[in-house]
Amino acid sequence: MGAEADVDDAVLRARAYLSRVAEPASVVMWEWVRRVGPVEAADAIRAGVVPEPVAAATAARRERIDVDADLDAAGRHGIRLITPEHEDWPHFALAAMERTAARRWEQWQGGDRAARPAGEAVPPLALWVRGSLAMHTLAVRSVGIVGARAATEYGVHVASELGYGLAGRDVAVVSGGAYGIDAAAHRGALAAEGATVLVSAGGLDRPYPGGHADLYERIAETGLLISESPPGAAPHRRRFLSRNRLIAALSTGTVVVEAGRRSGALNTAAHARRLGRALMAVPGPITSAASVGCHDLLRGAEAGEPGAARLVTGVDDVLAEIGAPGEGLSEPALPAAASSDPRATSGGGSRGEQSAIDGLDAEASAVHDALRARRFLREDELSVISALPVPQVRQALAALLLYELAESGPDGYRINPRSRTG
Amino acid sequence: MGAEADVDDAVLRARAYLSRVAEPASVVMWEWVRRVGPVEAADAIRAGVVPEPVAAATAARRERIDVDADLDAAGRHGIRLITPEHEDWPHFALAAMERTAARRWEQWQGGDRAARPAGEAVPPLALWVRGSLAMHTLAVRSVGIVGARAATEYGVHVASELGYGLAGRDVAVVSGGAYGIDAAAHRGALAAEGATVLVSAGGLDRPYPGGHADLYERIAETGLLISESPPGAAPHRRRFLSRNRLIAALSTGTVVVEAGRRSGALNTAAHARRLGRALMAVPGPITSAASVGCHDLLRGAEAGEPGAARLVTGVDDVLAEIGAPGEGLSEPALPAAASSDPRATSGGGSRGEQSAIDGLDAEASAVHDALRARRFLREDELSVISALPVPQVRQALAALLLYELAESGPDGYRINPRSRTG
Repeated sequence: MGAEADVDDAVLRARAYLSRVAEPASVVMWEWVRRVGPVEAADAIRAGVVPEPVAAATAARRERIDVDADLDAAGRHGIRLITPEHEDWPHFALAAMERTAARRWEQWQGGDRAARPAGEAVPPLALWVRGSLAMHTLAVRSVGIVGARAATEYGVHVASELGYGLAGRDVAVVSGGAYGIDAAAHRGALAAEGATVLVSAGGLDRPYPGGHADLYERIAETGLLISESPPGAAPHRRRFLSRNRLIAALSTGTVVVEAGRRSGALNTAAHARRLGRALMAVPGPITSAASVGCHDLLRGAEAGEPGAARLVTGVDDVLAEIGAPGEGLSEPALPAAASSDPRATSGGGSRGEQSAIDGLDAEASAVHDALRARRFLREDELSVISALPVPQVRQALAALLLYELAESGPDGYRINPRSRTG
Repeated sequence: MGAEADVDDAVLRARAYLSRVAEPASVVMWEWVRRVGPVEAADAIRAGVVPEPVAAATAARRERIDVDADLDAAGRHGIRLITPEHEDWPHFALAAMERTAARRWEQWQGGDRAARPAGEAVPPLALWVRGSLAMHTLAVRSVGIVGARAATEYGVHVASELGYGLAGRDVAVVSGGAYGIDAAAHRGALAAEGATVLVSAGGLDRPYPGGHADLYERIAETGLLISESPPGAAPHRRRFLSRNRLIAALSTGTVVVEAGRRSGALNTAAHARRLGRALMAVPGPITSAASVGCHDLLRGAEAGEPGAARLVTGVDDVLAEIGAPGEGLSEPALPAAASSDPRATSGGGSRGEQSAIDGLDAEASAVHDALRARRFLREDELSVISALPVPQVRQALAALLLYELAESGPDGYRINPRSRTG
């Protein structure tokens, strides 16, 4: 938890204010905060001296916010605010969203009406979190397991088995907090004593549904609760929709276990696809209405969506889709400690790290060579330096992050200072 | 049944002899018979004056065959022999197989060892049939429904529903005679009082399994029993494998309903794929071993097989894959009689046919214009004349055959003499 100490209190308070003053996923807000900085943005909104679209998004609440009360409430519930200025911010997970939002903004500013800010691809301004799990490796090795509340016994069984099997293979599970598939996935991961992440649509002090208060508590102990909304926020419908984009973004790939034809899980699936993440679906009996949405995804039958989801029948299929453990590293050359627990190599130069670097495959090695010690480089810059295409750079970065040989920041990636051997 | 009268008795007896003297699906036999003619081939085999590969395929049985006894046994059981010389021979259904076998033979003769006669793509030399259904429209609008003997309640339900629904939409069902999926598909078709075709691995006087004697009888009444083997032939394992190629060939597309990882239905699926037919699979619970083969097909996960099967969840999906009813014809312009029952327009020139021709879409019309009244033209010749690519020619021919505006023969297609308006 020491990480918060690294961030200036003014920044933290500004981000807390911004997280309440407008609904999440506003590209106008995100772009403006990125441009002027969080402290200046919060001050200007309070003073009412902002561009018109920002004024429209913030007018209703800008004078009614008590940041101290929010931070106090958070503290009472063990909730802390993580911002892009924190080390633990999931830059890697949100990179695709940042690119999309920036491109969309430029197109819109350039007069392209079709790129009007619909919001869904916009990164969060801050995240309220509770729990001990580190966030920065999310989307390096995490799988969204989503599906219908009105799940069948079959769906609950499959979600629970997937959650158990993936968490047992060191893959973090990411889902919502609903009855049915969401809860089954978390329970499976908890049973495996693995990592699981619940992304909530409302404030983390307000478990929703109320019957899942115990589930929230259990996840807070070993996993992570995440919400874009501050304590006290109600889980409105639009917050579920913006919440879905975070499940997709925080996951290397997303599996739809059961979904009726209008299930919210299909919204999460659409986000995964737009973010370029692996999209998977579990088939079921064609006689089951709860599998209709999955079969539509597998046929690629949704209107206007290109390509079909990949059919998965178990943990091995999912791992094959998101990339095998340590892909990008030659397993045999890895030191035993690094192989069994990558984090064992962090925290001070040792033979271990050098061996891990020696064990990198050609692509990961090339990208590691391209990284700088201090300056952060973007994926496209690393692509130019390493002469590798961006998807391979990204694959290599995932491995380097997993083994803590690289670290991500707001402006890209650099060599993890804790991994230096010299 | 008058069709047999059209075929010379010597040809019929020669084909009966050939159908017993060697196991089905011998490319050596097929090519040789095609070259020298059936009567000459049978005489030469009897006399023992044949090329070495033919001698090897026929040596064991050539002196032990009693054609009269076979034809008598057939007659006693209501079985008749249909040969390529008969009007009812399914030329259209077997065209892909003929092309493949001919090409393979040429490659083999040309010294390509990889094209060695493995047999599976070889058309039958003759077919023993029982029942009243016309064979020549098979593969124009027929669907193979195949799957495991060890089917689950779910699989039996789905196969039965598909059989019922397709037969009720004027699509002939094609399957084997086994317990499980095969029987359920037939029973569904029979319940809809629709057409169903059972392709047997052994002689038609020997229902296999014995418990399906009643099913054979019921199908003989309104559908069709087909076997490549003469009466009395036992259903050996290799005959099941060669039988599977016929199910695939006689079907516009094949649906695998349930299949374990080693199910024979996957062999039928492989044939369908090789013949360029639509291959479909029904998903099921991932917890069911009986759906594993289907899921493998849907992932395209079989070793060495390109492309995945299409996921189907019901009759509408299947119809979409094999082509809508009367595709290639503009529905609204069709006369009501032709639309409800295409056969109503056959048997003598009338306003009906002329209207049906008027109702053709541009491609079907172009192919119809390209057809000759007497001379048979091949698909590639029709492609040149009509300036349409072969797949479109084939699609158009399917519609023209369905509406009996064209007829198929050993050397291609011509205008159906019965459709001439004078």
